[in-house]
Amino acid sequence: MQFTIRQNTLLNTIQTVSKAVAVRTTKQVLTGILLQATEKELTATAYDLDLGIQDTVPANEETGLRIAQPGQIVLPARLLTDLVRKLPSSEIQVTVHTNYVTEIRAGSAQFHIHGIDAAEFPTLPVLHAPETLQISAPLLKDIIHTTGFAISTVEARPILTGVHVECKNQALTFTATDGLRLATRTVRLEIPEEFAWNVVIPGKSLNELAKILPDDEQVVVVQFTDTHCLFQSGSTLFYTRLIEGTYPDTKRIIPKTYQTEVAVVLDDMLGAIDRASLIARERENHMVRMEVHDDVINVSSSSPELGHVLESVGVVEKTGEDLFIAFNARYVMDALRASSAAEVLFRFNGANQPFTIVTRGDESAALQLISPVLVR
Amino acid sequence: MQFTIRQNTLLNTIQTVSKAVAVRTTKQVLTGILLQATEKELTATAYDLDLGIQDTVPANEETGLRIAQPGQIVLPARLLTDLVRKLPSSEIQVTVHTNYVTEIRAGSAQFHIHGIDAAEFPTLPVLHAPETLQISAPLLKDIIHTTGFAISTVEARPILTGVHVECKNQALTFTATDGLRLATRTVRLEIPEEFAWNVVIPGKSLNELAKILPDDEQVVVVQFTDTHCLFQSGSTLFYTRLIEGTYPDTKRIIPKTYQTEVAVVLDDMLGAIDRASLIARERENHMVRMEVHDDVINVSSSSPELGHVLESVGVVEKTGEDLFIAFNARYVMDALRASSAAEVLFRFNGANQPFTIVTRGDESAALQLISPVLVR
Repeated sequence: MQFTIRQNTLLNTIQTVSKAVAVRTTKQVLTGILLQATEKELTATAYDLDLGIQDTVPANEETGLRIAQPGQIVLPARLLTDLVRKLPSSEIQVTVHTNYVTEIRAGSAQFHIHGIDAAEFPTLPVLHAPETLQISAPLLKDIIHTTGFAISTVEARPILTGVHVECKNQALTFTATDGLRLATRTVRLEIPEEFAWNVVIPGKSLNELAKILPDDEQVVVVQFTDTHCLFQSGSTLFYTRLIEGTYPDTKRIIPKTYQTEVAVVLDDMLGAIDRASLIARERENHMVRMEVHDDVINVSSSSPELGHVLESVGVVEKTGEDLFIAFNARYVMDALRASSAAEVLFRFNGANQPFTIVTRGDESAALQLISPVLVR
Repeated sequence: MQFTIRQNTLLNTIQTVSKAVAVRTTKQVLTGILLQATEKELTATAYDLDLGIQDTVPANEETGLRIAQPGQIVLPARLLTDLVRKLPSSEIQVTVHTNYVTEIRAGSAQFHIHGIDAAEFPTLPVLHAPETLQISAPLLKDIIHTTGFAISTVEARPILTGVHVECKNQALTFTATDGLRLATRTVRLEIPEEFAWNVVIPGKSLNELAKILPDDEQVVVVQFTDTHCLFQSGSTLFYTRLIEGTYPDTKRIIPKTYQTEVAVVLDDMLGAIDRASLIARERENHMVRMEVHDDVINVSSSSPELGHVLESVGVVEKTGEDLFIAFNARYVMDALRASSAAEVLFRFNGANQPFTIVTRGDESAALQLISPVLVR
């Protein structure tokens, strides 16, 4: 294998796939990046057996890629990334010699690094899904951003470390919960009516996907099989295994009615809870109290060691009863930070029932459900 | 005590002193910041018994400070900093009530936090040095930057965790060494000829001082006693204890002559060593080799696991013999990164003797001395 390529082209493609490089593994080949050159393009692949990312660069003027001899090699990911980042010239030449020794040359610097036989690298899953779904990259990114944070990070119930992705009746729904809070979002899609999927995608994979999705209006093509799913965005393929098992039925826990509804300016409420949380103690679940009284919300917190804090937040609109409730400040801040809305609605059913936060006037935005802290 | 103050004024002064707040201590009062208000000014002090920083804010329009009632209180540093940073309004009112309960009010937010009696706060050392020295803030900052990194970070020889500061014959010299490398810098000052000091200042203290020194041409006034020194810059006082003991005589280990001298472009050499260090292994002291041959320097490194790297760097000027030497790449990179010169001189006395790096054409810049790695 021999090719020359522009430094930033190679760096971009290596960095794109590097999220799927295995970190803790006894199989050395998984800590590498597979480079494959055909007559027309260079493909970089990383695959830790859960997550696989593949990126392809075409040979042309813009990428600076010129392939002198097709071939393939696995190179240690971390060394390759550091090396390409630090090379002194904009053009890099890569040549594989005998025994997988790979020469990387740029300017007056010449590296010879030990590669690994590409035949040892695991094969990415082959997906032949009968149906594919298309969704805009920024929308998919936003759906992940507004739901993915609510997954469980403990392995006690592995299914909750995933995001439930359901597609039916021309709607796509993402749901994540850790048992104490839940985030869910449904968007309408122009797809055939009979189209139906029901899978659980590892939350970590989705959060990595969101990082490499482009910000412009590109289309992402999504395919599922029983064990894997594949997101294709431009020249990048993103594979992830699915989590086996049945996701709990979360629809029944989302309240349909409410006794109290208050509309507030998001930034005002987020600021007040953030300040109150300074006094809230970790061992008491970062507990902050909220009192809805007439057209004011009093946000407060106290701790025997630190002191107490009280702040009033104006209500934009209110319907229903007054209320006194306590919650984990971090859950409410996560939910509010996931939103880019100006105003949100808090909907309560008394102090002991979960409450919801939704964007005012946008039903396609996420719904956030949070269990209160029960106080005597 | 009661005063109002602009948010960013209070935040700046708290952040300035916060480096001297004790982190690991059983004395709770040392984790706080002492606030003292007189009729005319507010003073913030932090003091962990090694390092003390005091900053004073005058009452005027610019600072927004208005003192309604003089007094003093100690407030928990971390909570105070987070709280002031997150307050919603530009004007903050601080009021001390009975039992040291302190009310902090801004906009609609009202904190009551538990303060500590100011009488418990330790007193800063009183310095009545007979002589003071004046030096420009950017020059002092640069002297610390070019020498302070070379201190020892292990406590085996406490004296080497300090920087040796010597003043005699109208020259000020800073020297730091960890036993394997040394950095020293001498600057001429317009001071009385009989003026003489010889102290060892904790390296950590100097590095903190460099962070809070201003970038503009302000004058820093320096005072020493047998146990402490004080740097005064504008409204900020910076106290540090000195390290007891006698600093080793480092002058005799700095070679006066050399067998080989090469002038190189600093960025070229730094880049080549940085790249070679990617292959250099930690357990062999990040060893990189340098071969001076005719008018080229070959920088190389190798490792059985990773491979090898070779890069040639052009020589701007050379005198003396050819040479082959090995060194710890991190020491040479630290030395080169401390310099802002375009070209530096490497001066060698064979492969087994320490070599020096100096700025080409600037004797007032730092001298860096590095022990080679001895190779068979």
